[in-house]
Amino acid sequence: MKGVVLSMAPEARLVDITHGVPAQDVSAGAVALAQAAPLYPAGSIHIAVVDPGVGSKQADILVEAGGSFYVGPDNGVLSLATRAPRRIWRIDAPGFRREPVSPTFHGRDVFAPTAARLATGAGPAEAGPPLEAMVELGRPGVQRRGGVVEGEVIHVDAFGNLITSLPAETVAAAPGGELLIEVEGAEGTFEPTFGRTFSDVDPGALIAYVGSGGQLEIARRDGSAARRMGAERGTIVRVRSAS
Amino acid sequence: MKGVVLSMAPEARLVDITHGVPAQDVSAGAVALAQAAPLYPAGSIHIAVVDPGVGSKQADILVEAGGSFYVGPDNGVLSLATRAPRRIWRIDAPGFRREPVSPTFHGRDVFAPTAARLATGAGPAEAGPPLEAMVELGRPGVQRRGGVVEGEVIHVDAFGNLITSLPAETVAAAPGGELLIEVEGAEGTFEPTFGRTFSDVDPGALIAYVGSGGQLEIARRDGSAARRMGAERGTIVRVRSAS
Amino acid sequence: MKGVVLSMAPEARLVDITHGVPAQDVSAGAVALAQAAPLYPAGSIHIAVVDPGVGSKQADILVEAGGSFYVGPDNGVLSLATRAPRRIWRIDAPGFRREPVSPTFHGRDVFAPTAARLATGAGPAEAGPPLEAMVELGRPGVQRRGGVVEGEVIHVDAFGNLITSLPAETVAAAPGGELLIEVEGAEGTFEPTFGRTFSDVDPGALIAYVGSGGQLEIARRDGSAARRMGAERGTIVRVRSAS
Repeated sequence: MKGVVLSMAPEARLVDITHGVPAQDVSAGAVALAQAAPLYPAGSIHIAVVDPGVGSKQADILVEAGGSFYVGPDNGVLSLATRAPRRIWRIDAPGFRREPVSPTFHGRDVFAPTAARLATGAGPAEAGPPLEAMVELGRPGVQRRGGVVEGEVIHVDAFGNLITSLPAETVAAAPGGELLIEVEGAEGTFEPTFGRTFSDVDPGALIAYVGSGGQLEIARRDGSAARRMGAERGTIVRVRSAS
Repeated sequence: MKGVVLSMAPEARLVDITHGVPAQDVSAGAVALAQAAPLYPAGSIHIAVVDPGVGSKQADILVEAGGSFYVGPDNGVLSLATRAPRRIWRIDAPGFRREPVSPTFHGRDVFAPTAARLATGAGPAEAGPPLEAMVELGRPGVQRRGGVVEGEVIHVDAFGNLITSLPAETVAAAPGGELLIEVEGAEGTFEPTFGRTFSDVDPGALIAYVGSGGQLEIARRDGSAARRMGAERGTIVRVRSAS
Repeated sequence: MKGVVLSMAPEARLVDITHGVPAQDVSAGAVALAQAAPLYPAGSIHIAVVDPGVGSKQADILVEAGGSFYVGPDNGVLSLATRAPRRIWRIDAPGFRREPVSPTFHGRDVFAPTAARLATGAGPAEAGPPLEAMVELGRPGVQRRGGVVEGEVIHVDAFGNLITSLPAETVAAAPGGELLIEVEGAEGTFEPTFGRTFSDVDPGALIAYVGSGGQLEIARRDGSAARRMGAERGTIVRVRSAS
């Protein structure tokens, strides 16, 4: 892919965000892109290739949101990073494809040429017809029941830290009482201490905190929270006031 | 290596192709380079360091083919990417080495300086004397016996997909009958369905298809074909007409 | 982090040295930085983020040594790469931080902005007040007892090679006798042959040699020395004259 981009757009600057997304894990790719992309300068062109449905009837798409571009398959991998207002185009113009297009590697034959064309001044509408909608990943739920807010683990990072669906507001205010946080792991139910950062607890202890992406996260100091609790994507996390 | 290149050639642009080649696996490195290099602009300088014989009598070489340069050890790692006509030089001129040359890291002390010199305008013949030949990796065989074509797995990629030695022509035409494909894995003999892309079969099923490099490949939809079949490099793959 | 740098310093050139440092392993990060940094051009800005104490009272620091800059946490990760004379500053000026600073990701919110400011011409003293001292990693000992020099393994690389604390001088001269090298692994005591490079021994055999960083290293030809011997960081290595 890098060779294709540099052959078509010799002045393009290439930046690797991550090669650590597990194979075929569209959701993990979508989370990684949504965390990183907002930090890049407007006008950046982001390519995301987590594409188990490559070569099927699934469309290849180009999205413009917030002044930047997103290129990838229409399987939801672009959906968390691109919030409304956004515009979507199907990629099918000949100049945006490298013929013959391999049915198993659109990254090389469609997404890389599209990014190169955008980088050299083409407008997004040249790529193909506009689309009304794209595949959206379900935003994991946040449910409120009485005094309890329930969410789930949406991502486990390389350190074994758990990123949850619960936004910072969930834990921002607990007037008149302390927060009680519960994680329903395969190894049992755990109650991490709520704090600011890892060193607020002893080595080996579990801590819940507002992570750098603005979500509630759970970590184990000097270890892996995922392994300790038997937690994975979908594991239930609850916050209640201990008042 | 990157620091050495940038110290000698401050304007050089560095691109990482892969750091995923298994340790000391010259053949896997050669396949990776042969897949990626043709996609880069002519004039590119490719460095390949898979070098278990570093510091022995093995030569360090520089190859010119198709208007691009290839730098690495003379152990075959450059042989699949550089097809005739090509020219070969031994690297031994003082200006192309960083003294003292470590006997265990020619990547840093020979290949990086050589690439930097080429990037700043030196001619390849300045690197050292021309060579008549270089170490060639055997191109894995394709044998025809009656109506059967037999090849082997030459590479297992990060997804567990198998890349075989069988070219697209092997499966291009099967007039009057369907193709029967057999893989002799350690877990038994398997018969993947022939198709275009992963989604042509059900999740978990095996599929054979012409891969993005123009070879017959075998994958498991949403899984690892290598693990399912107990297949690895050298595993036998046969194609026969089912007519 | 890359997005933050490029947003603030669009002309900056980004180079990844390694993403292979084990999680929270400050010592391994310090060794990796000390090996790579001296090879980069003077004026380079190095960021090292191995930061298990992020968000605690630990300072964020900026070090100038040898005409280059080093940015990271004050936990020792910068200490092996920056030899005296050096100057140290605490990073706390508003322009060098991205508010609000996450207590778990100073890489993004402190170190990346600091590097970007330096890259666009800010002086290091603008970052904050000078410091007299920083956290130093203990340089692993080299002990001499009679004719024996004893050191330890300070790093195990991706190939399973052992980098020791023993400098090249330890094995440079053994007049009138051969060197005897002992490794006290969990799998027993091993005596690797002393040589120049891997191919000086048979496949599968152990070899000790002066590595590319100028330290005594121990490898297994075509295999992993660490696994063969049960060696890890801290494993004792002795050199004695066999005369």
